[in-house]
Amino acid sequence: MTSRWHALAVAAAIAALSCAPAGLVAQQPGVRSGGAARPRILLSRADGAAIRQQAATAPVMARSLAEAKAVVSAAMVAPIETPPPGEAGSASHEKHKQNYREMQLAGMLYTITGDVRYATWVGRVLDAYAGMYPALGPHPLSKNQAPGKLFHQSLNEANWLVAVAIAYDCVYEALPSAQRARIETNVLRNMADWLSVEHAKEFDRIHNHGTWATAAVGMLGLVIDDTTYVNRALYGTKFDKKGGFLRQLDELFSPDGYYMEGPYYIRYALLPFYQFAEALERVRPRERVYAYRDSILKKGLYSAVQTAFPNGVLPPVNDASRTMAVNAPEIVLAVDLAYARYGADRNLLGVAAQQGEVILSAAGMRVARDLAASRTTPAVNWGSVEFTDGADGQRGGTGILRSGAGEGASMLFMKYGVHGEGHGHFDKLHFSFFENGREVIPDYGFSRWINIEPKFGGRYLPENDSYAMQTIAHNTVVVDGRTQNGGVERAAEAMSGKRHFFEAGDANVQAMSARADGYSPGVNMQRTMLLLRDRRLPYPVVVDLVRVTSETARQYDWPVHFRGQMIASNVPYTSASTAQAPLGEGFGYQHLWKEASGTTDSTVKVTWLDGGRFYSVIAAGAPNTELVFARTGASDPNFNLIVEPMVVLRRRATDHVFAAVVEPHGYFNEAQERSVEARPRISGVRVLASDAAGSVVEVTGEGGLRWVVHVNNGTASRSATHVVRSGATSFTFTGNVSVAGLEPPR
Amino acid sequence: MTSRWHALAVAAAIAALSCAPAGLVAQQPGVRSGGAARPRILLSRADGAAIRQQAATAPVMARSLAEAKAVVSAAMVAPIETPPPGEAGSASHEKHKQNYREMQLAGMLYTITGDVRYATWVGRVLDAYAGMYPALGPHPLSKNQAPGKLFHQSLNEANWLVAVAIAYDCVYEALPSAQRARIETNVLRNMADWLSVEHAKEFDRIHNHGTWATAAVGMLGLVIDDTTYVNRALYGTKFDKKGGFLRQLDELFSPDGYYMEGPYYIRYALLPFYQFAEALERVRPRERVYAYRDSILKKGLYSAVQTAFPNGVLPPVNDASRTMAVNAPEIVLAVDLAYARYGADRNLLGVAAQQGEVILSAAGMRVARDLAASRTTPAVNWGSVEFTDGADGQRGGTGILRSGAGEGASMLFMKYGVHGEGHGHFDKLHFSFFENGREVIPDYGFSRWINIEPKFGGRYLPENDSYAMQTIAHNTVVVDGRTQNGGVERAAEAMSGKRHFFEAGDANVQAMSARADGYSPGVNMQRTMLLLRDRRLPYPVVVDLVRVTSETARQYDWPVHFRGQMIASNVPYTSASTAQAPLGEGFGYQHLWKEASGTTDSTVKVTWLDGGRFYSVIAAGAPNTELVFARTGASDPNFNLIVEPMVVLRRRATDHVFAAVVEPHGYFNEAQERSVEARPRISGVRVLASDAAGSVVEVTGEGGLRWVVHVNNGTASRSATHVVRSGATSFTFTGNVSVAGLEPPR
Repeated sequence: MTSRWHALAVAAAIAALSCAPAGLVAQQPGVRSGGAARPRILLSRADGAAIRQQAATAPVMARSLAEAKAVVSAAMVAPIETPPPGEAGSASHEKHKQNYREMQLAGMLYTITGDVRYATWVGRVLDAYAGMYPALGPHPLSKNQAPGKLFHQSLNEANWLVAVAIAYDCVYEALPSAQRARIETNVLRNMADWLSVEHAKEFDRIHNHGTWATAAVGMLGLVIDDTTYVNRALYGTKFDKKGGFLRQLDELFSPDGYYMEGPYYIRYALLPFYQFAEALERVRPRERVYAYRDSILKKGLYSAVQTAFPNGVLPPVNDASRTMAVNAPEIVLAVDLAYARYGADRNLLGVAAQQGEVILSAAGMRVARDLAASRTTPAVNWGSVEFTDGADGQRGGTGILRSGAGEGASMLFMKYGVHGEGHGHFDKLHFSFFENGREVIPDYGFSRWINIEPKFGGRYLPENDSYAMQTIAHNTVVVDGRTQNGGVERAAEAMSGKRHFFEAGDANVQAMSARADGYSPGVNMQRTMLLLRDRRLPYPVVVDLVRVTSETARQYDWPVHFRGQMIASNVPYTSASTAQAPLGEGFGYQHLWKEASGTTDSTVKVTWLDGGRFYSVIAAGAPNTELVFARTGASDPNFNLIVEPMVVLRRRATDHVFAAVVEPHGYFNEAQERSVEARPRISGVRVLASDAAGSVVEVTGEGGLRWVVHVNNGTASRSATHVVRSGATSFTFTGNVSVAGLEPPR
Repeated sequence: MTSRWHALAVAAAIAALSCAPAGLVAQQPGVRSGGAARPRILLSRADGAAIRQQAATAPVMARSLAEAKAVVSAAMVAPIETPPPGEAGSASHEKHKQNYREMQLAGMLYTITGDVRYATWVGRVLDAYAGMYPALGPHPLSKNQAPGKLFHQSLNEANWLVAVAIAYDCVYEALPSAQRARIETNVLRNMADWLSVEHAKEFDRIHNHGTWATAAVGMLGLVIDDTTYVNRALYGTKFDKKGGFLRQLDELFSPDGYYMEGPYYIRYALLPFYQFAEALERVRPRERVYAYRDSILKKGLYSAVQTAFPNGVLPPVNDASRTMAVNAPEIVLAVDLAYARYGADRNLLGVAAQQGEVILSAAGMRVARDLAASRTTPAVNWGSVEFTDGADGQRGGTGILRSGAGEGASMLFMKYGVHGEGHGHFDKLHFSFFENGREVIPDYGFSRWINIEPKFGGRYLPENDSYAMQTIAHNTVVVDGRTQNGGVERAAEAMSGKRHFFEAGDANVQAMSARADGYSPGVNMQRTMLLLRDRRLPYPVVVDLVRVTSETARQYDWPVHFRGQMIASNVPYTSASTAQAPLGEGFGYQHLWKEASGTTDSTVKVTWLDGGRFYSVIAAGAPNTELVFARTGASDPNFNLIVEPMVVLRRRATDHVFAAVVEPHGYFNEAQERSVEARPRISGVRVLASDAAGSVVEVTGEGGLRWVVHVNNGTASRSATHVVRSGATSFTFTGNVSVAGLEPPR
């Protein structure tokens, strides 16, 4: 594979050289002239004219255009500032970010309006950079990152160049050639070389940092007709496709388009992926990059927006913020381009409606036009969906079960794929649950106060490693108080979760099941999660079955993180209410205050309040089960962690099944002083049988509710009949999952 | 006073009796017939007809009417249930509340629509009560409250009767007389007697419980022509005006209308006050109740809505929920009636716009009509305002400084009035600060999960006494770690705060000052708070000067409660990050985990993040000042408290001045990953001089900012010149407050 690509790259390079005028090649190797008219990489003059003429008829475009004009107008009356480099989050850092955003918008406004003042202003800002950039050395505050010059890390430098490539493309023809030469030499090529020559290793990384760097250099190459830059971007610094944009498309996505770093990072990478792809499609259409790898860019975007919670927020798995949502500018860009390039999908138009803005290009114009033509606001409903993980799709996956419509829909998310490299968390078989407009059983996300300068320059905090990445920070079983794979990234990368089954065909009985074997030495684990609707319950409920097996006795912790206020528990407990100590000494336990604990042999019930609704966990009893109440914030002298509660069910056993129901119930409105049904309707959960063939669990509750839940633990099959024995009793069922006694909503 | 009222009451009673037909009087003492046509107490047939005809032209009325119809339609197809009494928050409790709400709406809809099915349904529900009520005894679960029969406390029984009096008034003519007789005997009179005869003491209390009881009995009397009920309600059970509605109007409000229990409880009391007043005005206009005590009911409503934060939420001082707002149904009622009875005030119409609903009466129709006729949504802007406290207006007060408009306005609230009876908190000179749409320096409010049954039946929790009422739960100085007045209500009631000055004439320099002397034995305290605008700062800032004096050395704690995340402090501290203990042993300190502490002689800076903005406290240095970080949640085995952070400045001294600035600054948007100005612009605060004549404080910051703040500590005067000395230096200024060096916004 590699050698084939190497050959192609060399051929392309030779082809490019062979048609370049000799004089220019002598001056600047790799440069050829004669490309398409500029602007060429994101919007053409004709596109600009169309926007100018049609914006008034498409409100979303009119608004986006007005906002861009407002931003640039303000910028153009302010003094031009290119301050000396500063720390992450510093005024200097923010100013350089602001500059590239404003230059990009100004360039595009020049193309759209034809008003030369925009172009002149961009030229003036670039002149300022041309005056200061050559004197800059590597940023002194890079701290374990490849340094930039303007910014503490080269990643930000690539962000700058991606935006400025677009700006420069737009204003190119309006600037005198001497000014262009100075800008290209002092800043643009200088920066592109810094990214792709000085930091060749970072450039060749199969990672979002590599994507940004390749897009930046490649886009500049397409604008200034430097084929070397373009080929380096496509095939890596050695032109052998061991690095480069295409290799990233091969390896960073599963065949379903799932991005191994998770939704937060695909969000970030979508911009350079789509921006460079669009530039290639326009200038080098022969690459057919949108079709590449069975339209992997389409799948990449879809897998991102399809993981979103009903309110548009992306699940904060792995290193991720809690609030990143589909209205992020990167996703706005990708949605518009995908809508234009892959076809007018009504669900995608629904996402565009959630976003409420479009990019200033032909693609944005198309989306805005279709939104204007739509009689009703297009709704988003992706339904339940599973994504495989790994470049070959054989390394587990991610399952999403949905029920209901709109922002109040329920969504159950389970993670059973790959580790996800440096930003991965040790959280195999972790789940989160979104309900009533909130992530009620949440993922902690990252420990980072992004861009807040006094918080370690806005970078990742030590607590990201010591807490947020650890298994106990997630909703999955922890063995012997130790993080999966001992917290060693390399060990985690070497394995993956295993898909077992995913069945979403019956809207009342949806289920997904997966395994994580050996993540703790000698322990195999299977988690099956169901999302059930029954007419005797007002909201869908979660049934969770975690089956752990081991040769020797182990300590199993089954954690549920929540937000809001503890309301009641049926387990008598002792409260550490006058002296508090951490729950453990390492693997994240040192960051949890132990607030209370109690022991029971019977069903465990815990109820909390979050927003306007109550939530109860009702878990099957087992001898000598400990219930622990804990809260983040211990061993955190810098107040970096967010203080939030959790409960843990703890049991020592060889094999064990955690069987629990999560029931949303009741109503609370403090302002109206109304509260109803603060106690759950489900009263009992009992494991009737569990072995290698299957698990059988009984759930009982009000109104005569009695479910018997059967789950296949053996080879997945929708048609096989399974027999599970418990002593003299045997339970027979067909398929991967069945629930007896369920009364569907009418 | 009392004797005069007694005479009037007797005269009124005699007058009423003298015109009653003899026959009826013989049957039911105190009853007379011949009153105005029914319905008569809240809306007339003509009012109903007008609503029917005009609702379609006034959208708010149309919506309110549609909502009422939806509620009642659902009720009328459900089975009628009058379950045996249950605990607070139980299904039974909620059902009886639902029943009276639905009966009231159904009655009013009968009057508006003329559809007799509404009346028949109300009759059927009342029949069900007639069948069960006579057999009920006192509720067994009253727990220190006067019991009701349907409900655990008689207060709820009064709520029921107020609503049902309106319902019964509306449907009276539609029910056969035999049915009426049974309903009146078995339920209505039975309940009125329970409230006013069995619980005469509660009935005569000058307290909101008394208001509900008198309104319930009085309104019933006006409906069924029972003058005894009416006079008992007006003048108390002994007709001597030692209790009763008029006495409540005399004593529960300051001359400015401020209600001594605070905004949350006036909200609750506004309904019976206005409902009974409206009924009196319609049936006994000679009482001129709306004009009573220089229109005290108008002032009572205005003082409530004028204390509201810019988002409409009422400051949760004393026992109060954090979310009660001007859109509470009780305030909707009072706003509509006040608008109709006291005149069409544009600000009040603005409150009605915030409410978005109206009552189904002529007053509601008028508000809806004026809202429909208004071209723009009326805005609310009460400006800065002060209320005196105490029935005579001589017992301190409440000050509110406002700056800016809309929900983002700043509001500084300081409390220096009376204790406020059983719901009062020991919080003299407490302040709260609202900014950027949030209560950023908050009042804890009550400790109560209102109506959540598993939380002690939804009643007040033990932590209300042990924490929420204590001084340290507030933002005011605590002496020697002990609550004001030793936490003894009687002692607190015996004293009050003292107004010093309130100056809001200069929009850039607003100030208020008050004293609390002897709340801790031997300690006098003066707090002066300023709200300043300077063009070098993006938002108004608070300057706080607390001057404490004592003969002996004391420990002074200056607390600031906040929400959100600690960001940075300049004081080196030791963190209790691996073992935590409470901050103290009593007076609320037992509920605070001590998280960290450090000592400094210099300026103290603490910055936190709340929502999208940063907040810094910059406090003057003083030798050996301790900075303590604490968090609620200790000694709370039932998880009743809300876990929230605070900082405390602690100093041991005889006389001391806490001088601090609270500066809002910067911007954080996690979803956009943007953060700027996470550090404050104010850098220094220094006390230049302070004595009995005045205090002089210097504030310095970026952009050459240097203010010298002069505050008069002696007799308040706007014209006197004051000289404050510090060693050889003297500072001279005129008036109560002046700020040199301020640069007003342009």
